Amino acid sequence: MASTKPNLLVGTDVVDRKNIERLSEHSKVYTLANTTGDDLERILPIVDVLLVFSWPRELTSENLQKMSGLKFVQSILAGVNHIPFANLNKNVIVSSNAGAYSDEVAEYALALLLSAAKRIVELHVSLREEKWTLRRTLDAGTEVTILRDKVLGILGFGGIGTSVARTARGFGMLVYAYSRRAKPAKGVKIFDGEDGLSSVLRESDAVVLALPLTNQTTRIINRERLSVMKNTCVLVNIARGELVDEKALYDQLLSLPNFIGTPHVSGPSGLATGRPVQLAVGNTIRFLKGLRPQNIVDPREYVTSYPY
Amino acid sequence: MASTKPNLLVGTDVVDRKNIERLSEHSKVYTLANTTGDDLERILPIVDVLLVFSWPRELTSENLQKMSGLKFVQSILAGVNHIPFANLNKNVIVSSNAGAYSDEVAEYALALLLSAAKRIVELHVSLREEKWTLRRTLDAGTEVTILRDKVLGILGFGGIGTSVARTARGFGMLVYAYSRRAKPAKGVKIFDGEDGLSSVLRESDAVVLALPLTNQTTRIINRERLSVMKNTCVLVNIARGELVDEKALYDQLLSLPNFIGTPHVSGPSGLATGRPVQLAVGNTIRFLKGLRPQNIVDPREYVTSYPY
Repeated sequence: MASTKPNLLVGTDVVDRKNIERLSEHSKVYTLANTTGDDLERILPIVDVLLVFSWPRELTSENLQKMSGLKFVQSILAGVNHIPFANLNKNVIVSSNAGAYSDEVAEYALALLLSAAKRIVELHVSLREEKWTLRRTLDAGTEVTILRDKVLGILGFGGIGTSVARTARGFGMLVYAYSRRAKPAKGVKIFDGEDGLSSVLRESDAVVLALPLTNQTTRIINRERLSVMKNTCVLVNIARGELVDEKALYDQLLSLPNFIGTPHVSGPSGLATGRPVQLAVGNTIRFLKGLRPQNIVDPREYVTSYPY
Repeated sequence: MASTKPNLLVGTDVVDRKNIERLSEHSKVYTLANTTGDDLERILPIVDVLLVFSWPRELTSENLQKMSGLKFVQSILAGVNHIPFANLNKNVIVSSNAGAYSDEVAEYALALLLSAAKRIVELHVSLREEKWTLRRTLDAGTEVTILRDKVLGILGFGGIGTSVARTARGFGMLVYAYSRRAKPAKGVKIFDGEDGLSSVLRESDAVVLALPLTNQTTRIINRERLSVMKNTCVLVNIARGELVDEKALYDQLLSLPNFIGTPHVSGPSGLATGRPVQLAVGNTIRFLKGLRPQNIVDPREYVTSYPY
């Protein structure tokens, strides 16, 4: 008897055998790694569901045009700005993996915030180079920034923002969150709109960017908005670099002693916990079962920035 | 009419005018900065109470012998290992300023813990030098350490240890505390004795040292105790350096990529909040009023390490 299950193409090797088995209960599973050349050409038109980590290099816009039966795309990465929305049929449902890495990324945000506030990198380099340049400012007390009772502004109050807020409250910080969809949370003051954004930026002693990268959020931190912030404010961008107008600021910032930058590392360690794949596979199974998947994104909010 | 108030010598200039006025309501206040030469010689025998930041260089062991009426010493520094206990009359009561800097120092402990766990210094230096040496270990996930659900061992559960525990709980860490005086705390498992210490060191993914420096705690972290710790364990010493057998380890550690060291900075910023002076003056006034002061230390636990 021919299979009547939907056809699922897994476009990444981060899905382990156990999760492939879970998917196989509800679909006929093909993996991109084991499907090349003619086989791929044959499969593309019958693919119903696509599970990707980031968008696979093998799936060019030409391939995508041939995926005429595609109904659902699930990302294992939290963000979906890698998905080529411009070439995707409007009826295709795309789900992000929002929340899958939230706690790991929130920990990393706090690590960057504390490193900047306590000048860890700068002081460590001074110590190692035996340059004891630290000015003793016992009276001014400006050596390091104390977080307790200070205002933390969080831009974007999804999974990461919520987790950052919870952890920051443990330090006794007051939390202001800028969010389109105001969800009440204990000890968090919600702001909305352009005026709300200005208030958060103006009153915060530290700002964490935890927004998705969309048309509306690209370069949300520009010269004008930077100018309203306190000049002692610590700015932590835990999300996509393009949230900040880096063209204007990167050269200048990189040479500043209080700039801290690290590569993209907090997600991969989160991936290794197995949780992101587990959640993405679970959401894919929701779709395969005919249920409404979670974390459906609005394609109109996303630019096609993936270079292919 | 001659004053019958006790004589108080303030041996530091960090006590502001307002607090001097508070003290003057209960004592005749002399300040070391305004008392030199013959005046000092005259005052020493009649000093009842001494308020110091760290032990003043001007007060040599010769001076101390002349302070025959001394009854109480209050430290503004949290630790009292700077006090020359060996030359102090046994009847003199000495109070530490335990707890006065707890939150500031706990924040700094978390900053060091997160910097090490997330490899902030190392990754930042790589980025700045454009050495992208980070090995992509997506499968192993060993790039950064996740704190959630990991065990944090805290050695010493006074003001700092308690504050570290509360903040670490906000990260979802499990807290084990090694403490002689077991105080129950929510979500914290208390350990005692040599076996307890071994258990904490063996099971912890990160260890924070928050002990006072006493005879019993000097070099508490020696080769043997280091050897039972996980080789992935993050060790944070937020207290005095002499808690760790640095003679044996310093040369080796300083060259390791995952060693982070910074100068003594978290206390001074705490001092600038005014809280430590406020608390030390308040405790001094307790003594002047005939009440039992808080934070009385046991002189037998302290070495005379101050070089004078």
